[in-house]
Amino acid sequence: LLPIKSLGVLERLDAGEIVIGDGGFVFALEKRGYVKAGPWTPEAAAEHPEAVRQLHREFLRAGANVMQTFTFYASDDKLENRGNKLTFTGAQINEAACDLAREVANEGDGLVAGGVSQTPSYLSCKSEIDVKAIFKKQLDVFIKKNVDFLIAEYFEHVEEAEWAVQVLKETGKPVAASLCIGPQGDLHGVSPGECAVRLVKAGAQIVGINCHFDPMTCVKTVKMMKDGVEKAGLKAHYMVQPLAYHTPDCGCQGFIDLPEFPFALEPRILSRWDMHKYAREAYNAGIRFIGGCCGFEPYHIRAVAEELAPERGFLPAASEKHGNWGAGLEMHTKPWVRARARRDYWENLKPASGRPLCPSMSAPDSWGVTKGHTELMQQKEATTQDQLKVLFDKSKSH
Amino acid sequence: LLPIKSLGVLERLDAGEIVIGDGGFVFALEKRGYVKAGPWTPEAAAEHPEAVRQLHREFLRAGANVMQTFTFYASDDKLENRGNKLTFTGAQINEAACDLAREVANEGDGLVAGGVSQTPSYLSCKSEIDVKAIFKKQLDVFIKKNVDFLIAEYFEHVEEAEWAVQVLKETGKPVAASLCIGPQGDLHGVSPGECAVRLVKAGAQIVGINCHFDPMTCVKTVKMMKDGVEKAGLKAHYMVQPLAYHTPDCGCQGFIDLPEFPFALEPRILSRWDMHKYAREAYNAGIRFIGGCCGFEPYHIRAVAEELAPERGFLPAASEKHGNWGAGLEMHTKPWVRARARRDYWENLKPASGRPLCPSMSAPDSWGVTKGHTELMQQKEATTQDQLKVLFDKSKSH
Amino acid sequence: LLPIKSLGVLERLDAGEIVIGDGGFVFALEKRGYVKAGPWTPEAAAEHPEAVRQLHREFLRAGANVMQTFTFYASDDKLENRGNKLTFTGAQINEAACDLAREVANEGDGLVAGGVSQTPSYLSCKSEIDVKAIFKKQLDVFIKKNVDFLIAEYFEHVEEAEWAVQVLKETGKPVAASLCIGPQGDLHGVSPGECAVRLVKAGAQIVGINCHFDPMTCVKTVKMMKDGVEKAGLKAHYMVQPLAYHTPDCGCQGFIDLPEFPFALEPRILSRWDMHKYAREAYNAGIRFIGGCCGFEPYHIRAVAEELAPERGFLPAASEKHGNWGAGLEMHTKPWVRARARRDYWENLKPASGRPLCPSMSAPDSWGVTKGHTELMQQKEATTQDQLKVLFDKSKSH
Amino acid sequence: LLPIKSLGVLERLDAGEIVIGDGGFVFALEKRGYVKAGPWTPEAAAEHPEAVRQLHREFLRAGANVMQTFTFYASDDKLENRGNKLTFTGAQINEAACDLAREVANEGDGLVAGGVSQTPSYLSCKSEIDVKAIFKKQLDVFIKKNVDFLIAEYFEHVEEAEWAVQVLKETGKPVAASLCIGPQGDLHGVSPGECAVRLVKAGAQIVGINCHFDPMTCVKTVKMMKDGVEKAGLKAHYMVQPLAYHTPDCGCQGFIDLPEFPFALEPRILSRWDMHKYAREAYNAGIRFIGGCCGFEPYHIRAVAEELAPERGFLPAASEKHGNWGAGLEMHTKPWVRARARRDYWENLKPASGRPLCPSMSAPDSWGVTKGHTELMQQKEATTQDQLKVLFDKSKSH
Repeated sequence: LLPIKSLGVLERLDAGEIVIGDGGFVFALEKRGYVKAGPWTPEAAAEHPEAVRQLHREFLRAGANVMQTFTFYASDDKLENRGNKLTFTGAQINEAACDLAREVANEGDGLVAGGVSQTPSYLSCKSEIDVKAIFKKQLDVFIKKNVDFLIAEYFEHVEEAEWAVQVLKETGKPVAASLCIGPQGDLHGVSPGECAVRLVKAGAQIVGINCHFDPMTCVKTVKMMKDGVEKAGLKAHYMVQPLAYHTPDCGCQGFIDLPEFPFALEPRILSRWDMHKYAREAYNAGIRFIGGCCGFEPYHIRAVAEELAPERGFLPAASEKHGNWGAGLEMHTKPWVRARARRDYWENLKPASGRPLCPSMSAPDSWGVTKGHTELMQQKEATTQDQLKVLFDKSKSH
Repeated sequence: LLPIKSLGVLERLDAGEIVIGDGGFVFALEKRGYVKAGPWTPEAAAEHPEAVRQLHREFLRAGANVMQTFTFYASDDKLENRGNKLTFTGAQINEAACDLAREVANEGDGLVAGGVSQTPSYLSCKSEIDVKAIFKKQLDVFIKKNVDFLIAEYFEHVEEAEWAVQVLKETGKPVAASLCIGPQGDLHGVSPGECAVRLVKAGAQIVGINCHFDPMTCVKTVKMMKDGVEKAGLKAHYMVQPLAYHTPDCGCQGFIDLPEFPFALEPRILSRWDMHKYAREAYNAGIRFIGGCCGFEPYHIRAVAEELAPERGFLPAASEKHGNWGAGLEMHTKPWVRARARRDYWENLKPASGRPLCPSMSAPDSWGVTKGHTELMQQKEATTQDQLKVLFDKSKSH
Repeated sequence: LLPIKSLGVLERLDAGEIVIGDGGFVFALEKRGYVKAGPWTPEAAAEHPEAVRQLHREFLRAGANVMQTFTFYASDDKLENRGNKLTFTGAQINEAACDLAREVANEGDGLVAGGVSQTPSYLSCKSEIDVKAIFKKQLDVFIKKNVDFLIAEYFEHVEEAEWAVQVLKETGKPVAASLCIGPQGDLHGVSPGECAVRLVKAGAQIVGINCHFDPMTCVKTVKMMKDGVEKAGLKAHYMVQPLAYHTPDCGCQGFIDLPEFPFALEPRILSRWDMHKYAREAYNAGIRFIGGCCGFEPYHIRAVAEELAPERGFLPAASEKHGNWGAGLEMHTKPWVRARARRDYWENLKPASGRPLCPSMSAPDSWGVTKGHTELMQQKEATTQDQLKVLFDKSKSH
Repeated sequence: LLPIKSLGVLERLDAGEIVIGDGGFVFALEKRGYVKAGPWTPEAAAEHPEAVRQLHREFLRAGANVMQTFTFYASDDKLENRGNKLTFTGAQINEAACDLAREVANEGDGLVAGGVSQTPSYLSCKSEIDVKAIFKKQLDVFIKKNVDFLIAEYFEHVEEAEWAVQVLKETGKPVAASLCIGPQGDLHGVSPGECAVRLVKAGAQIVGINCHFDPMTCVKTVKMMKDGVEKAGLKAHYMVQPLAYHTPDCGCQGFIDLPEFPFALEPRILSRWDMHKYAREAYNAGIRFIGGCCGFEPYHIRAVAEELAPERGFLPAASEKHGNWGAGLEMHTKPWVRARARRDYWENLKPASGRPLCPSMSAPDSWGVTKGHTELMQQKEATTQDQLKVLFDKSKSH
């Protein structure tokens, strides 16, 4: 028997294995002090490798099989965007990110996935050729560093995702494609089912959803993709990497529109028990690549791995520090906390927010601007105070 | 002018400087996969030093002046408690923790504080001599490793804290003492004012509150301590290291009694903006040692450091990745998110929980058992299933 | 110029007038002590005429143009149902109700509407002939008492509503038909648009929605009906008489499924300001018969009449005791309450529930039983304890 | 055996009987269209006697033993206040109110209580002689109409209540005195215990609390009064007539300060099941005069009477239309609603607000103005727009 390590992502999925993804790096590293919210760029891979390495390691330890290179928004057009001066070139950042992912992957059974995501160029209405050239540049690094497979993720428009898949596909590596859309479809109104069909036809072997919505919404959307693919007589594997935030009140743009984004999302964070429900729901929906995105901390991935331990046949390393369904509390000092060392307690608890002046739902921003609208044209210069003033006033009048 | 680094904690406080503490290690490392909830012991200092080192570094980077040794519950009686078999001796764990704190403190202007906390021996009604011997053992390591000062923290009964202070005092090092009580006083009903007077008389130069309650409640309680000390004609410095959880619904036992403790506290987590309010309130109350406890992540400490930057005269290193009051959002892709790059937006936002089936407040457990009650006697053996069954049934009948 | 009084309902609607309906009698009189929740029958018309008369008068005074006879569930099959022994015959109750409505209508410009509603016979799968005979019996009284027009209301299945309309139509009186369904359609899955078309074809001149959902949901559903009718090239007037309870969490069965129904709906009651929004929304949707159902108290109808006063050209009598948008508070003792005497205060207020242990939304019951299922067969005998036991157990296991 | 009817209020209380009060007329009649919020005056007793009579009758039917004359704020100084032009003299209103209360009382076992309440004269710093003259004028009517006993209620300052009691006492009728204060005491800071002692010494035989706070808070405050009276070696009977609104977030001024007062209190309305808990709690606290104030509708009083039926030995008349603990639902059409025909269902339900954008608690206004402050001086002229403008601006800046 071959050790599982030597198998690629498609071989694992073809064999019916569960592949557990990691969590979102930008949000986790923002909290740790290494990523700046707003630009959201991953220069920390080169600047602070110890911090990125440690987060990879925590996800591996929590049960993740995939070490995604910390290359989100690491395209040159994004790195240069909006006055964001960096000490490192795009190539340096992408290379450092590949090295870190590989180093930690080799500490366990991890696969390295090189990731590309949507570009300011597309949003600013650049041509297909220009946009594809952006992806190609990142891809050159991934090939040089010999990643195990590729992920095109966080696309709001299926058209741009198709372009990305077409570029990635040329490498011969397995390609996964994942949109950040909900049940209402992409921002041009293409339904999840049709999006999935287009991605499969473009060459993606794994399709799915990441970011922008909470786990249950993402699973629901992947189901719609699966239905579309099956009705079209096609075949694919499915992936889901949702937010770790509850978003019942989002519109088609997802959590970006919530008033709490990105600095007051705390009360929406999923508990580990919410993650158990998510993992089971995703598994039952036939999804086998199950991970996380923004908001996921290592303990969230551990909860996914613990829920699916019966199917996988083993617990993750980090479960050495975690009892099943709260069993570790058997050793707590206080008797009423020991009384919580059981599944039905946690499964049925409805946690309070401790915020009696706050509501349970928000009314999302809905400015009704989409690709092509002036306000969405991306610029390299820093936003001026005059530009901001216009936005502040517009915001208050809503 | 001496570099601030060469100054001790008392010299800084005497000079009117703000000393920023770090955040709570047990909760942060539980989420990262290195501490087990229930026993809550710090063996990771020896087992997984890279994880502990990285967390120290993040707090330093966020603005903390104090690197507290990761020695919470590292007394031998606690380490052996409830069937918790460990590979490392208490001395090994305490030594490793001192080395890690020192290593990172030296990367900046950090002070190393050796910490002791309440013991199962006291709860199980052992004698003053026995309890003091426990503290002495940890202290021997701190002296050998030459920590900069000492903290006796997380005491529910002022009597045990006095004993700890008396032991620590013998070393000649500066001593801080911090109780985990609220405005109602310690678990024997001693008022915060009287507690503070007793701790100062026992020899503590810094007194205050940590853990168990949210920031505003802790600041309020420290104010009561300050009043007591001043009315008694005594002098002290004041410290506060609260939870990063909203706890408006707690009784005298604090967040331990909340049904969400410890695995569903997510919706209660404070935002960075809540931390700005906390830091200002603590400063206005005359408290100068301002840090955090359970729930604090590095970005929470950064928010404290940013709020107090005008008084301190500088921003923490991690602010390189954070704009003031959301200013980093000026570079966000979406215009309505750029419109959030301003203080009044975040200051006035009432964040939604995204949990429409959950309440805003909980009814805390109140079993009415205190020190001396059988159910609170601590045991070395693992809790049996029969013992648990009794507790489960008791819990359901409440 | 003819006094408005002499105009019938269709003449008013044809002339573009707004017709304001009254509120729901069963819920209002249940709170006053004259209707029993469960059977919900209107014997109070004969037993306690002074109470029914007073409620009619309050609605008239609040601005209602329609005095609907208090004959909800006053069919003989319903009156005899489930062990409900009554002193009065169906005919006596229907006659008394007509007399009371007429007496109060004559005190102002009110029209008397005779109302029939869905029957246990239909739910128990009786034949079209049997069901129509039930309607016919009530109708005989309405004709004898010469009501001004007829309303077939509170039907969950469009088929039964069609039967009712066909019977009512034979009288030559104007006929309104109103279903208690939401945007998902009737309980057999017929869409609102198709339902409306079928009702118009059956002979109803006015079609719309009453009960089961909150005002905004009902207006939305009537819009779907209007779209359906217009797409079919037909013509109709539109009515809406919603609940005065917020029901964002309902499924297709409406508020009946909410755990709070019918005895804990208090926190969901709409304020008068919610009613202003409802009235405007309904008017803007082209609806001209605008009233209320369960939960509406006289002040809710007054708010509708006050919102539409500019269009109607006059205020209702009860506005003598109500300032516009809180203007009466100008005379309040406390200055901060006088500061609330303005529209923007009330329009923007988000009222607190004062219930920190309660959630904002509920998970509705969904037993999945529909017409034809044994548990929905209606019986004349009182429910036995054994029958109840089965239901209690079923309920707890959900 | 004498019929209970012939017994006075003190004879009933001395015999250990429960005396059930009625509910608040101003709020109930405001919703019905007969009282104007702001002035809150009771001219409807003369203008619309049928509406007032009907409400009396509903409370009698619900179980009330006391018909309180609808004379709240019926003092001449209040009637003339703030530009409030009335067709009726104070004497006419007071006389009409007495006649209505007597008429309905005679339909059952009701007692008529003549009520006086706090005056604008006191708030405007008039002399003891002036204020007492105001009370005397109302009293003359009560004596002429031979009410059964007297209630001085709704006083925020115990001093004014003492003056009222002293005037009422001279008639020889039994005197009850009830303050609208909470556990923090009256608006001059006099504790509930001391207030009670002063009222008993002034001559009140029954003392207690009405209005301003929710039932549990009022019961708690009456307990403090009882403790005070007993510690002073005095004797009294106790009464409580709270709001039917949840007010956990109030300060010392009660619900007047809540942002929702008076037109958006709906989500705070107590359910009938909350009333069961209230009635039991009041009874257990030794209170025997148990009624309601603002927000109480007849069904709330019925719930009190049903909870105390075992002690009283009978159910109220209106229970003919109400099953015990929801038993009437046994006859509901839908099986899942029949499944709610049981006590434990309703007792444990946490009702949702249906308002996901609203919080559970509010931050009360706290302008910090008390008797003597210019803004609290009452005026006869209508408030001018200039005066209001000042208040609106002040309100927005809070």
